Order: sequence, then structure tokens, then C-alpha cells
Amino acid sequence: MTPASQTMLTSRAPSSGSRDSRRVGIGPRYLLRARRSSHSLPQASSVQENRPAARTLRAMSYRSARVAVLALMCSSAILCAQELAPPVPQKLTVRSQVLNEDRTIWVRMPAAAQGRNERYAVAYLTDGGANVNEIGAIIDFLAGANLMPPLIVVGITNTDRVRDLTPSKADVKNSDGTVDSYPTSGGADKFLDFVQSELVPEIEKRYPAQPFRIIVGHSLGGLFAIHALMSRPQLFQACIATSPSLWWDDFHTLRQAQKFFPGQKEFPKTLFFALGREGGPMAKGFADLRKVFISEQPKGFVVRSAHYEDEVHRSTELRGHYEGLRTIFSGWTVPTDPKTGRARGGLAGIEQHYRGLSQRLGFQVSAERAINSFGYSLLGDKNISGALAAFQRNVELYPGSANVYDSLADALEAEGKVEDALANVRKAVDLATRTGDPELPAFRRHLDRLLTPRK
Amino acid sequence: MTPASQTMLTSRAPSSGSRDSRRVGIGPRYLLRARRSSHSLPQASSVQENRPAARTLRAMSYRSARVAVLALMCSSAILCAQELAPPVPQKLTVRSQVLNEDRTIWVRMPAAAQGRNERYAVAYLTDGGANVNEIGAIIDFLAGANLMPPLIVVGITNTDRVRDLTPSKADVKNSDGTVDSYPTSGGADKFLDFVQSELVPEIEKRYPAQPFRIIVGHSLGGLFAIHALMSRPQLFQACIATSPSLWWDDFHTLRQAQKFFPGQKEFPKTLFFALGREGGPMAKGFADLRKVFISEQPKGFVVRSAHYEDEVHRSTELRGHYEGLRTIFSGWTVPTDPKTGRARGGLAGIEQHYRGLSQRLGFQVSAERAINSFGYSLLGDKNISGALAAFQRNVELYPGSANVYDSLADALEAEGKVEDALANVRKAVDLATRTGDPELPAFRRHLDRLLTPRK
Repeated sequence: MTPASQTMLTSRAPSSGSRDSRRVGIGPRYLLRARRSSHSLPQASSVQENRPAARTLRAMSYRSARVAVLALMCSSAILCAQELAPPVPQKLTVRSQVLNEDRTIWVRMPAAAQGRNERYAVAYLTDGGANVNEIGAIIDFLAGANLMPPLIVVGITNTDRVRDLTPSKADVKNSDGTVDSYPTSGGADKFLDFVQSELVPEIEKRYPAQPFRIIVGHSLGGLFAIHALMSRPQLFQACIATSPSLWWDDFHTLRQAQKFFPGQKEFPKTLFFALGREGGPMAKGFADLRKVFISEQPKGFVVRSAHYEDEVHRSTELRGHYEGLRTIFSGWTVPTDPKTGRARGGLAGIEQHYRGLSQRLGFQVSAERAINSFGYSLLGDKNISGALAAFQRNVELYPGSANVYDSLADALEAEGKVEDALANVRKAVDLATRTGDPELPAFRRHLDRLLTPRK
Repeated sequence: MTPASQTMLTSRAPSSGSRDSRRVGIGPRYLLRARRSSHSLPQASSVQENRPAARTLRAMSYRSARVAVLALMCSSAILCAQELAPPVPQKLTVRSQVLNEDRTIWVRMPAAAQGRNERYAVAYLTDGGANVNEIGAIIDFLAGANLMPPLIVVGITNTDRVRDLTPSKADVKNSDGTVDSYPTSGGADKFLDFVQSELVPEIEKRYPAQPFRIIVGHSLGGLFAIHALMSRPQLFQACIATSPSLWWDDFHTLRQAQKFFPGQKEFPKTLFFALGREGGPMAKGFADLRKVFISEQPKGFVVRSAHYEDEVHRSTELRGHYEGLRTIFSGWTVPTDPKTGRARGGLAGIEQHYRGLSQRLGFQVSAERAINSFGYSLLGDKNISGALAAFQRNVELYPGSANVYDSLADALEAEGKVEDALANVRKAVDLATRTGDPELPAFRRHLDRLLTPRK
């Protein structure tokens, strides 16, 4: 059919996780730097609308840098096949004393986590299944675009769904007069006991979790998520509820919300809820919950909702997850100066931004990537002393990261201090070897290049 | 830390693809049927807004059915770990005579494809990389919600990005008077020669592809995608362009579009394009392209655009892909009768719907899942003769599918024809064994159950 084409198909490789999708530069000019700086982000692209066309082009070609870097880093076809393998959820079986049963849990690490020694906030999903990969892909995308941090996803599969996700015991009257009985319903608080006293401690023992937890649910899971946010404020900092079944038990949880929120002086949490083209009691619950938030809100409380007229009940999740995550991590990106395209306030501005974020979110947010990116943007403009200051600050703040030494070496080399550069690349190689950092081959090539006498 | 919890962590299993995420029923009542009917969809949930609360609950608990089914099908921890593994893109190296170079291509099969003998439309992505998994996750979600068909994703990685993605040779003047030179630019038509004469034939030889191709691109890739739609109408049926760089070469491609579209009498294709909070020439190109489509459109042409004020250049892709796919496959779902919650026009209505879809899209769209789902909804309401008619029709239309025999067996069993049911389940088991259908264990259990004398 195509005699002109010679093709080679590699075998399907095992998935051992995914490369950091953020291995990007901001254009062809930054290609070499991007290769040795796994965490430089295309910061300029966020302000490209104010730049002349040429800069726009450079800002936009960061994908080519990434792809070129990926290609360069492949030493074999098998390795390449792994490059794009998305994270595979791990299965965890938790024996619950509270519920007197085994619970199957899926845990998905973010794509960015491979070889990194970082801690991540956690999204807990009810009805854990394919939605673990769906929200995981959104997280990888938004984290790759530097609009939110990478998150761990924990999907809780069901045993008795109606029991666990309903806050009160109820039967359901049909319009034809018949009654559907749900004898096990009303177990949400017991299920929350399991989550709080057994699941969360287990996750935080086994995985590099930050103490920032988001509860995410759809339908009855959305009902449960809203109930959880109100009843366990110490457990969850944020909630995403898509198509929540607020009609359950004659709007029991809605009525609680109508009392709860006006009674809170301070509630430093985020709630996002959404509905599709859904009618009847579903729509009434949604509309009435919106009304709760028309008037003044508790201090620190962020609430947003969306009505997707072009989605149906079964399709509200993806957009709800996307918009919910954007809402929770609103203000994540360092503001840029439209004149320079760089972080507003420079190095101090970046640190201040992340201090503020850390305070608001209640966990330590890393400024490493932003500082690294800032340093390379200075280096690109031949501001070597500025770049040195940025990279040295990263070494002070994040001595456990191999990349900070590799980046510092770039600036030292630009200053002509080849011996100092060599010493820092050696540190990067040593550290990356110990931690299994996927950037190790790039650091090694950097070392080889520095050791090769120039012609 | 949690002495009460006994935990078991399975090893990270190799990814050999993903289960069909559509193994769902429409509620607890349908659990057993859903288990033996991998393709029954929660059709009722699409109209749940008009149902009383109890039906809403049933419609909404399809996830529990899916998860329960997944749990039941797991025979070992390792197998379970694979259940949620998302598809892993395969690497294909294509030797191009046209470009005189090797091209690296990533091919991602949809999650729904495992063990299925079906053909899928194909989305071709420029800047192939992490976006392959991102759009793949959207496709799996929307296909799982029965809002579009599963698609194969083909990601084309770059060698010389500016060369391949720009339709004309140009240098770029900066506002400070300097000029950035792009000496290799203007190679889009040659790159399209490669796509048309080498890549597409290779993909359609190696993968189960339908002759329906979507070109998807971002930034310069978006510019390229719009150029491709106009210049190779025989190659692509649809185009998704996010943040297209229409400013390239003094709006060269925009000017072509201004001439091209008003000159077409008929253009049975779909174009979706989107922009973020982007200014300058980027915004001008977008606004001017929108103006092209204010007046009358060519016959059969569907065009839609979106301006995402809360996205930046680097973050328009995900929402653009989602909305673009929804636009291209608008009208995919069989319309339902709000009174019954079932397909409007019954079996004949379903077939008519898919005939219309097939005609509009230009490839044969399978009605199997919809007919199967319809049959089970009749069976659930004890309309056995109706269910038999639906399942028998599926056997006529799709004799190569194992599931159609298994479903027919359910209706035959309900009618008391156990011997006929047995014969059909045996057919399902035989066929599934030959094709490697992942539903084989479920068919086997069905067979065992029929062979076990009732107490």
C-alpha cells in the first residue's frame, strides 16, 4: 500500500509511569536550556498576547522544544514507548474496622511525580473507577500548564453505594405512588469515619501527601461531598460536586446547607458545584443551593457553581472537575509583568507569591519551578548575575533537588566559571543517581559536554 | 499510625490497555444484566430529569454497577491493577520519502477498543506529546458517556516544527525593528504530502481506522490545521484549531479563508476553533476568522468557535478539544422519548438514527450498543418479545460480536427457552474465545449458571 514507507513498530512497552510533561522551554532559542532544565515553564507564553509576533511565535513553540527534548532523551525504542505512558493507578486494599469490610482503593500519582521528591495535595473521589484516569488527565494537563499543582488522586470504589453516600436513611416515593426502599441508606457519617480514621491516615502514610484534601463526587457522590465539606471541616479543604443528588430524603442535605453556611463566620474552603440539563428535584436542589450563596459569604469561603445546559447528568463530571480544580487553585500562577513577560517583582515577587499561596492553602507550595524558569529567562537575556542569584536561591531553598545544581551550573558556565559549573553538575548527577531522578541522562550529558575540551 | 487497618499494596502492574469503561448498567436493578451486557449504556440517565426521584436514583447509580462488575471480574490483584490502566500510546517510526527523514508517531487506541472488532475514526494531532493522552482521556470519557464514538489518536512529533506547520515562508518583524528569520518555514504543503501519501495510508493499514479523519492543532498547529482543512478537503472531515497562529506571514492563511469559504457551495465538514485571553495579532486573526462565518455558510458546513477569557495561550487545548469533539459529533446520541426514557421510535428509530449519522459522517456507525441497551431496557420492563426482537436484530446486523448472542440468551431465558439460551451463550463463548474478547469470563459465568440445575 505504501511501498515508499519503511515503518517500525515497537512492542507495547510496560507502563512504569509517565515523564514529566513540563519538560518544556519557551522556544527554539531555549531548546538547550530547556533540555537541562526540566522544570522551566513557558512563562512568557502566558503574556504572549502583549508581545510582538516574533516573540509570540517563540512562546508558542515550546511544544517543539518538549518533543525535541523527549526525542533526544530516548536511548532506545522501548524507553520512548514509556515516555508517553500515562500513570497507572495502583490498587490498595484497606481493611476497615469501622465498616467491617475490605475496601478497594485506586491511587494515581500525577505524571509530574516520577523521580521527584515532592509532596502533593490529594483529591478523594467517590465512585472510584474510570473517573480516576479522567480527573488525572485533567490534573496532568493543568499542572503542566502551571495552573495548579500536581495532585494525587484516590478513587474509592463502592461496596454498598447507597449506604455510604447518603447522609440520612430514606425511602423514595415514586410519582406512581410506589415506594422504593433503601434499607441500608444513611451511612454517610459512618463512611466518613472510615475515610477520616482509616483511609486518609493510610494514604498519608504510604504516599507523599500534603495535608490538603479535596472531596470529589458525582450524583449521590456529589451529595456526599457537600455533606462531607460541612460535617468534617477538619478533613477537607475543598469540594467538587457534580450533579449532586440534593433531592435525597426531601432535600435533607440542602436544608442543612441553608442553616450551615449563614452560620459560619469564617470558612476558609472552596466549594464548586455543577449541574447539567437536568430537571425536576435535581434542578430544584441545585437552584436552591445557589440561593444560599447569593448573600454574604463566610470569611475565606470561595464558592462557584456552573449550569451546563449542553451536558446531561452522565456527562457533567469532566467539565465540573476542570472548572472545580481551576476554582480551587485560582491564583496559582505567579503574576507576570506585561512589559517583561517575567514574574512581577522578580525573585522576591515569586517568593512572596508562594508564601501567600502556602498560607491560603495551608501547605508548603514549592517555588522551585517558578524560580528556575525565572532564572533561565534572565539567562536568555544575558543577565547572568540575575540568573546566578535565582539559581543560588533555589539551591538554598531546595537542596534536595538535583535540577537546582544543574541550573546553577548553566549560569556559572555562562560566567566562565567552568570548574564551579563542573562541581555543580557533578552534584546534580550524584543526587539524581541516588533519587532515581528521570533527568539523570540529561545531567550526565551536561557533565560530558563540560568535560569535553572545546575545539 | 493506623493499627486498625490492614493494607495490601499490589505491585505496579504492566499496562496492557484498559477495560471498556462503558461496562455499566442503569442501576442496582440492572446489575446482573449489566454484567452480562458489556455494552448496555445508562440510557435512562440521559432523561432522568423528567423522572421521579426514585428513577433518578436508579439512573444515577450506574457507576456502582460498573464498579461492582469490575470487582466481580477480578480474579487476582494483578488483574485488578490492570483494570484501570489507561491506554498506552504505541510508538511508530515512519520513514518518509517525501521529507527524507524518519518521523516518530504516537498511536493511542481508545480504552473501549480492547478485545473489540470495530473500526474507529482517527484524530491526527500536531505537536504529538502529552496532548495524545490528554485528548485520549477526553475521548474515553465522552465515548463512555455515549456522546461520541471512541477514536484512535495519532500524535505526530516534530522534527522542524516551524517548517512543517507554516503554510508560507516568512520572516517575522519585531516591534523593535529587528527581524527573526525562519529560513525553513513554509513547508506545510510538503508536510501534508507526507501525511496524505505516507502517514495516513500507514495508519489505515496498521490500525482499525474508519475513513473519518480529524486534524487537531494548537498555536502554529492550529494554523496548520485550518490550512489543511481548506487545502486537503479529501483528507480531513473535521478540524479543531486551538489558539491558531493566524497572524503568520501577515495573516496569509486568514486571507485564504476569507476567499475560500464564501466560494464553497457545499463543504460537509466541521470546523471548531478557540482562543484564550490572548491579544494582539493572535486576537485579530481569531476575530477576523469569526467574521468570515457570520454570513451564509456552505451547505453541510458546521462551524463553531469559542473565546475562553479565563484561559491563557498554553491552556486552551483541553477545553478546545472537548468542545471541538462535542461539535463534530453533535447529535451522536439516539434521541429519547421523554415519556419512556427509551430511544424515540424504538428499534426502527435507532436504526434510522444511525443510518443518518453514517450518512452525515461518511462512515458506517455501529448501532450495536444502542440496540443492546434498548433491548435490556425492554427486558427490565418485562417486555420479553420486544427485547427478543431487539437482540435478534443485533444478531442479524452484528454477527461478529460475541455479546449479541449473550444478550439474546438473556431474553430467551426470560421466555423460558433455556436450550435456545444455552446455544446462544455457547456461541458467545466460542466467538469471544476466538477474538480475545475481554467479556469472555462474563460469558463463561453465564454459561455455568445456565448449566447449573436450579434448586
